[in-house]
Amino acid sequence: MTEPTPRSPDHAIDPLFHTRRSPRAFTGEAVPEAELMRMIEAARWSPSAYNAQPWRFLYALRGDRHWDLFLDLLVPGNQRWAKDTGALLFLVSSVNMKVGDELKPSASHSFDAGAASLAFQLQAIRQGWHAHGMAGFDRDRAMTALNVPEHHRIEAAYAVGRMTPPAELPEEQRAREAPNGRRPITDFTFAGGFPAQG
Amino acid sequence: MTEPTPRSPDHAIDPLFHTRRSPRAFTGEAVPEAELMRMIEAARWSPSAYNAQPWRFLYALRGDRHWDLFLDLLVPGNQRWAKDTGALLFLVSSVNMKVGDELKPSASHSFDAGAASLAFQLQAIRQGWHAHGMAGFDRDRAMTALNVPEHHRIEAAYAVGRMTPPAELPEEQRAREAPNGRRPITDFTFAGGFPAQG
Repeated sequence: MTEPTPRSPDHAIDPLFHTRRSPRAFTGEAVPEAELMRMIEAARWSPSAYNAQPWRFLYALRGDRHWDLFLDLLVPGNQRWAKDTGALLFLVSSVNMKVGDELKPSASHSFDAGAASLAFQLQAIRQGWHAHGMAGFDRDRAMTALNVPEHHRIEAAYAVGRMTPPAELPEEQRAREAPNGRRPITDFTFAGGFPAQG
Repeated sequence: MTEPTPRSPDHAIDPLFHTRRSPRAFTGEAVPEAELMRMIEAARWSPSAYNAQPWRFLYALRGDRHWDLFLDLLVPGNQRWAKDTGALLFLVSSVNMKVGDELKPSASHSFDAGAASLAFQLQAIRQGWHAHGMAGFDRDRAMTALNVPEHHRIEAAYAVGRMTPPAELPEEQRAREAPNGRRPITDFTFAGGFPAQG
């Protein structure tokens, strides 16, 4: 059976990039800590301005003493499916960076953390897991509950787990779980500067 | 000959992640437009909050009518090596996103553009090129020269080209070109929240 998918690249790329997706149907399988560390290892090698490495990872493994708190920090709509994943994470960036001996505000801490987040998600795919990023969490409560220091920003939450194969889902849920599409390159890529505003 | 490198991962990952690096020694080879589009295609499939896809790519190909302008927008220290690359880009993010029919400020436009930037750089590696990200460019002048609309932010510049094999570099330059290291995972990864501040 062919999965219904709008994911046909217009230019030849490593399938890793369009295989990555954000499912909401997971099997409930736990993610072993050693598996999670491999995903974070991939993030570790990401580029950052001045090699400042502004990313920080906070994690809970299914059933450990942090799991209930992490799950509770998500909005109810995310809790509903994230409860069946095997690890929950918050990705935080450090707003300041050391330049020589001085601490200076970084202009790219969010951008650099975003790069690390993709490495994390792609390596998850390589290991047979899926990571689903979330903006839907209680940011203020998370800052306190996770003891996030000042001059740090919570960028995103992630749920990592084993995706339920679409073929095993009921018809209606399978349709809902079809991966989303993208606008064509020509919409957002320009030779030279931006075209004149019409 | 073994290249001197501090790049030994502590956990098993796809070599793609630590093969990506930011060289400053390039051969001068031009990047064909079709090759560049494949790199941007990889970026296209990146995740973003509400699938807003806030990334925008502006590019110049070596020798085309935009090349001199793009090169001139870099700080002199970057011009020195970027002149030997085959494509120059500015990655811009759109600060607002459409939610339904409304335009709202995105909390993650930089973060999401950062994810796209890594896909771009990793796909470049897959194709045998290297992309080097830069924070060193004249931001104000670039906003005007590249006709960047309001509510957009220039996140980074990239130079893409064919890396000169380290073995072909003079000893001194080879040492300078050794890829940089990373702090260990245990420095930035925590089970549960951040540790108490000491």
